[in-house]
Amino acid sequence: MPHLTAYSVPTPARWLILAVALFLASAASTADNTIPRVIPSRLIPVPDTVSPALQKLIAKAPVRRSKQLPQTPQEWTTFRATLSKSVAPFLLEARNKFAVTTVPQMIGGIHCYVVTPRTIDPAHHEHLLLGVHGGSFIVGGGEAGLLEAIEMAGSTHIKTIAIDYRMPPEHPFPAALEDAIAVWRDVIHTIPPADIAVFGHSAGAALALSFVQRARTLGLPLPGAIIAGSPWADLSQTGDTYFTHAGVDNLLPTYEGELEAAARLYANGRDLKDPQLSPVYNDFAGFPPTFLVSGTRDLFLSNTVRVHHKLLAARVPTELEVEEGQSHTQYLSAAMEGAPEAHELYAQMASFLSTHLGHSRH
Amino acid sequence: MPHLTAYSVPTPARWLILAVALFLASAASTADNTIPRVIPSRLIPVPDTVSPALQKLIAKAPVRRSKQLPQTPQEWTTFRATLSKSVAPFLLEARNKFAVTTVPQMIGGIHCYVVTPRTIDPAHHEHLLLGVHGGSFIVGGGEAGLLEAIEMAGSTHIKTIAIDYRMPPEHPFPAALEDAIAVWRDVIHTIPPADIAVFGHSAGAALALSFVQRARTLGLPLPGAIIAGSPWADLSQTGDTYFTHAGVDNLLPTYEGELEAAARLYANGRDLKDPQLSPVYNDFAGFPPTFLVSGTRDLFLSNTVRVHHKLLAARVPTELEVEEGQSHTQYLSAAMEGAPEAHELYAQMASFLSTHLGHSRH
Repeated sequence: MPHLTAYSVPTPARWLILAVALFLASAASTADNTIPRVIPSRLIPVPDTVSPALQKLIAKAPVRRSKQLPQTPQEWTTFRATLSKSVAPFLLEARNKFAVTTVPQMIGGIHCYVVTPRTIDPAHHEHLLLGVHGGSFIVGGGEAGLLEAIEMAGSTHIKTIAIDYRMPPEHPFPAALEDAIAVWRDVIHTIPPADIAVFGHSAGAALALSFVQRARTLGLPLPGAIIAGSPWADLSQTGDTYFTHAGVDNLLPTYEGELEAAARLYANGRDLKDPQLSPVYNDFAGFPPTFLVSGTRDLFLSNTVRVHHKLLAARVPTELEVEEGQSHTQYLSAAMEGAPEAHELYAQMASFLSTHLGHSRH
Repeated sequence: MPHLTAYSVPTPARWLILAVALFLASAASTADNTIPRVIPSRLIPVPDTVSPALQKLIAKAPVRRSKQLPQTPQEWTTFRATLSKSVAPFLLEARNKFAVTTVPQMIGGIHCYVVTPRTIDPAHHEHLLLGVHGGSFIVGGGEAGLLEAIEMAGSTHIKTIAIDYRMPPEHPFPAALEDAIAVWRDVIHTIPPADIAVFGHSAGAALALSFVQRARTLGLPLPGAIIAGSPWADLSQTGDTYFTHAGVDNLLPTYEGELEAAARLYANGRDLKDPQLSPVYNDFAGFPPTFLVSGTRDLFLSNTVRVHHKLLAARVPTELEVEEGQSHTQYLSAAMEGAPEAHELYAQMASFLSTHLGHSRH
């Protein structure tokens, strides 16, 4: 039973840690609001109100993270390459399912992919989606980063450009953002910015938000809309669900290990709470309408709702959807499995884009 | 350390249950999507990004539920009276803080309270809020149910009527809904329905949704807007966060016990999934714009997002807010403690009401 071993009954060592923590907590003053609370072990069933396709994904064992993290730049490059290779067969299937073609093309001097749906919605003939892929800032380069762009282009029937931005270890922050800005400067030569939406999930959603903040700082025009799926908005382990949903999320079971290492590799020595790295610490004034997605099991639910509140405070029109039973950006695989929940979510995104694209903000 | 004992290290008995469950799960087929997953015990810190006032509430020990549930109608009545009495001093403070008066008044033959803010917003002179109190369908009668109405009237500066609906054990379903309909029939004699918003939290939010569904069935006009705080939309233990957030939520730590007993007392023998009892199983066609609130620790997060998705599917304009670190309807006490997060939430509700009240829906 592999899917019960990763998060099974705590080991004696874990018990000892808990017992010590409990003792320390008991020894502390009740007036101290920093005392953590102990949550007992429990069984969580697969929700029976979601579709069978989605149930199958929710029932999966938490993804096992590598025990040995890459240490040298060479090891990181190999790690990245191995992950990319494992995605290739999946992508062929995705292109067929969502009826799109993907063609590499240099745009503004940056390697990109043009993702073209078989049919383009006539209402969106003038529009463009600009995708920033996920993958913890460190993986998902080349074709391996195209899944979301394929689903988005195929679901909304809008022409899409996916930015294959540079990544660590060779190119840490701010390379990814510089690349996005270079592509942006190029595309807005021919397409009005209000006709373009930027999208991404996880690290890609964080980059999409940071990119808009950076464009604003540079005095560039902003896009007409943003779709941010569960943005990795705080690269430090700050946010309630980093703790409450640890191990509950089966796609991103924990911050410790790979996520933290990836954040540090990308940050390249900067404070993880630097507002240019963690967009939740930056401000959202003047942002275009933004659509946010999370799930009830998402490790990044707090990342998502913290961004939502900053957008609301900045009076930005926003929509927040939280998917029942879903882990971090699980809608991407749900869409591949044909789950009706994912179909409905993409329909909501398409409707959001129809409402907001093409309206000048002034 | 009372606040660490309620949810402390599992007892040997709990361990035995887990071990048996684990064995049963291992014995079952991996293809079975109904296998529950074991989540280990963990420590959850108090988020450090929220205000000190809110941290204080989040740091509190989970509310202890009564060990011995009432068994006879007489015992339920006593239980209700004891709880009501404990709320009284709190309400005097609330009235002062939110600068409102509360006056009992019979409306449509039903006992209500008119909650009047010291200053009424001139933009809302024609408008009315209609409150349906929370309290698991079985408590919160009389003045004890007025906290939310006081906060709402004082925050939005709109005149409010709080319905003191009949409750079990004497008056189970559908008494509460009949009372709400009676008040509705009365108020719409003098006030256009589009000028009235209905609100509630928890069981009150479920009743608000069920009331609108019932009004629709009766062919009555519908209100102009709804505010539903963490609606108890599914009275059965169906929904992901009934399990994932059990013990994480410090205000509503578990479904088992009081909640389940209250649901059954109210249902009076009906199936808890009856669409007239659990509004998530009813449909939301033609609903007015609806504002929903939950929190990242809310036991009813799934109740809330399941309603949200049904509203979206019915193309109802909705807004969903999920509060960082907050348990079930914790914004009510956060508002009393002066937490800026609650102040912002009420400002969002006020803005939602300003946008939607007074627009005829045909």
